[in-house]
Amino acid sequence: MKTFNSYSCSVCKTVYDPLEVIYTCPKDGGNLDINLNYEVISKTTTPETITSSQDFSIWRYLPLMPVVDPGCLGTPLRSVGWTPLYQPQGLSRELGIQPFWIKDDGRNPTASFKDRASAVLIARAREIKAEVVVTASTGNAGAALAGMAAAANHKAVIFAPKSAPPAKVAQLLVFGASVFLVDGNYDQAFDLSIQAANEFGWYCRNTGYNPFTAEGKKTAAYEIWEQVIYTNSLKKPLNVFVSVGDGNIISGIHKGFKDLYELGWLKLMPRLFGVQAEGSAAIANAFRDGVENIQAVKATTLADSISVDLPRDGLRALRAVTLTGGSYITVSDTEILEAIARLGREGIFAEPAASTAFAGLVKAVERRLILADDPVLVMITGSGLKDVKAATNAVQPAPIIEPTLEALKKILKKQKK
Amino acid sequence: MKTFNSYSCSVCKTVYDPLEVIYTCPKDGGNLDINLNYEVISKTTTPETITSSQDFSIWRYLPLMPVVDPGCLGTPLRSVGWTPLYQPQGLSRELGIQPFWIKDDGRNPTASFKDRASAVLIARAREIKAEVVVTASTGNAGAALAGMAAAANHKAVIFAPKSAPPAKVAQLLVFGASVFLVDGNYDQAFDLSIQAANEFGWYCRNTGYNPFTAEGKKTAAYEIWEQVIYTNSLKKPLNVFVSVGDGNIISGIHKGFKDLYELGWLKLMPRLFGVQAEGSAAIANAFRDGVENIQAVKATTLADSISVDLPRDGLRALRAVTLTGGSYITVSDTEILEAIARLGREGIFAEPAASTAFAGLVKAVERRLILADDPVLVMITGSGLKDVKAATNAVQPAPIIEPTLEALKKILKKQKK
Repeated sequence: MKTFNSYSCSVCKTVYDPLEVIYTCPKDGGNLDINLNYEVISKTTTPETITSSQDFSIWRYLPLMPVVDPGCLGTPLRSVGWTPLYQPQGLSRELGIQPFWIKDDGRNPTASFKDRASAVLIARAREIKAEVVVTASTGNAGAALAGMAAAANHKAVIFAPKSAPPAKVAQLLVFGASVFLVDGNYDQAFDLSIQAANEFGWYCRNTGYNPFTAEGKKTAAYEIWEQVIYTNSLKKPLNVFVSVGDGNIISGIHKGFKDLYELGWLKLMPRLFGVQAEGSAAIANAFRDGVENIQAVKATTLADSISVDLPRDGLRALRAVTLTGGSYITVSDTEILEAIARLGREGIFAEPAASTAFAGLVKAVERRLILADDPVLVMITGSGLKDVKAATNAVQPAPIIEPTLEALKKILKKQKK
Repeated sequence: MKTFNSYSCSVCKTVYDPLEVIYTCPKDGGNLDINLNYEVISKTTTPETITSSQDFSIWRYLPLMPVVDPGCLGTPLRSVGWTPLYQPQGLSRELGIQPFWIKDDGRNPTASFKDRASAVLIARAREIKAEVVVTASTGNAGAALAGMAAAANHKAVIFAPKSAPPAKVAQLLVFGASVFLVDGNYDQAFDLSIQAANEFGWYCRNTGYNPFTAEGKKTAAYEIWEQVIYTNSLKKPLNVFVSVGDGNIISGIHKGFKDLYELGWLKLMPRLFGVQAEGSAAIANAFRDGVENIQAVKATTLADSISVDLPRDGLRALRAVTLTGGSYITVSDTEILEAIARLGREGIFAEPAASTAFAGLVKAVERRLILADDPVLVMITGSGLKDVKAATNAVQPAPIIEPTLEALKKILKKQKK
């Protein structure tokens, strides 16, 4: 029995057959939602069948996904997701909130949340027999696609702006992808990748363009449900903080919670909080103005993964917040760097685009959008090793000393002052 | 009942009470082995009690460790270990060996194998009420100690040579450690850290000095046993390839297998293969010459984590190989870089010191030290994100192009030639 019913446009609501289109709505370019047949899913799958799975990865949720099993056993593609949950007591006390969780998606195979989307994309590519996959990326999505493609023996082509951090580019190349650094910004890389996909018949993974990325990203919501809400029988809605750039992560997480709500497995819809960098706040601006019309900005933030002029999945990202009673919050680059250092002191190393979500929580607590007994979860979307330069800017440099006890004593004395 | 019986010196065999000493043998400076009471362990613990544990971290093996439960629930310290196993079919075919596993310890919280040692060290520090922990490190051990200390709210002091890669230093600082970059090499940082520990009463984690590091590292052997040997009921000895610098990882892994053998849970002792960089091959030299006297070298290799003049745990590292019927193998920096690229094409991103083990396997197969049906496992000890510069050297740089389809077509044409 088929669980993948149809696509529908998030703007004009037109419904399409799964065989009819592959990317955005042909009428207005709106992002397509993938509609599942919950009745069919319910017949074979219950919370118990899921939670008793011995597959500790996103693939435990295969019955809720619009793809068939991709195989690739014994590869990194099978170890995406089921990322660890932390409950840092120090932060909890400092913020005066409890219970408080951090979910560390930097622990994925290529060290970012994007592995979720790319793994499911590869599953889809195998189904439609696409040999070459392509994406534009500021780094993480590309590394994830390159890594998952390597695991599954697909050819990957990546377009990145030439300003992408060296660590991310190195990862792309090591994974054997064909990499083109575009002399332009992310948006230009995005357009070029679509042109190339059309020209050469490559399957395009672009975020906010291919409807399957959100279906991969929704697995984070499933894990949050299973690891936090279901396990702890939460009696209040969970407040989930997510960094937002093009909007596809928060809309994917929203989709996951909607699936579970429709299935009747989730009673209280979590409230979603989108956090954007002040210098890249197109969706937060629309939220502030109470409009659905998202205007492009000229993005400037050190959090490269969420530095976006025109969010490609802005409308759904906006609704993820408005429909769940959350809020959009903006934070400065200084606050983003402070958040890196604060998370670090708990042993959690986040990249700027990941620490942004935590910086947003700090602000939300200050503004009393979050109260002492509101359950909170912050998504960490990428490892700090992805952008070492930013990490270096978040802390004081280490002193260089002669290798003698005298030199050490001298500097310790100085530091105490 | 106590499971931690005694220490004994690996050189002169003198036995010490657990309360008597804390670092190396007072007589000859030999590394101390920690002797467990296997009879006591056997009374409460069986393979079944271990393999049915729901704790998917090194702490599932707590009954086999000489420390008490460190607490720290909900922190990265509790998510060390139980790293994924891959079975890359492409590599298996290419090398003509089967079965073949890769265990990716780059997936640990601070992205290296060293988290195993540092987590157990912190457990020990809590037991002996040491507030400050200190270590010398080329990077990974320090990052691991800083990260685990942050998780457990201990103060960490790290001495690194000023040549340590920026990514590793950034990690140390973000984790809130006091970092001192020593104007000298690793060995000088090592000596200074011991002087400082003695002077200030800090608990010193130094590799090949503190006997508890090997007790942390042995958990990798337990996981290899549980995930590979026990699960697959292997009928031939497993061949385990490990990169070797100061020798503490391979001696720790050896200790783990010896524990299991003594307990009667392991029937066939795995053969251990130590792989060193040609330019840092002190232990491999002794193996080649058939002597136990390990001579210092002037280390030069791009694999910084295994670049060591005088291995601090050389004797036990040598015996780990001679006593198990394995071999020492040396590989060039070029072979190390090639191994990074080859692993990358399977979606596995290793740092140079980690890809070294795989480069050694390639050579062992060429030399017929490994035959077609010998079961093989390669330990990947650290993530490629730890040393992006080396990764960049392992691959061709990406071309920069104008953001137009014409520019893309032009370069694709060129690349085909």
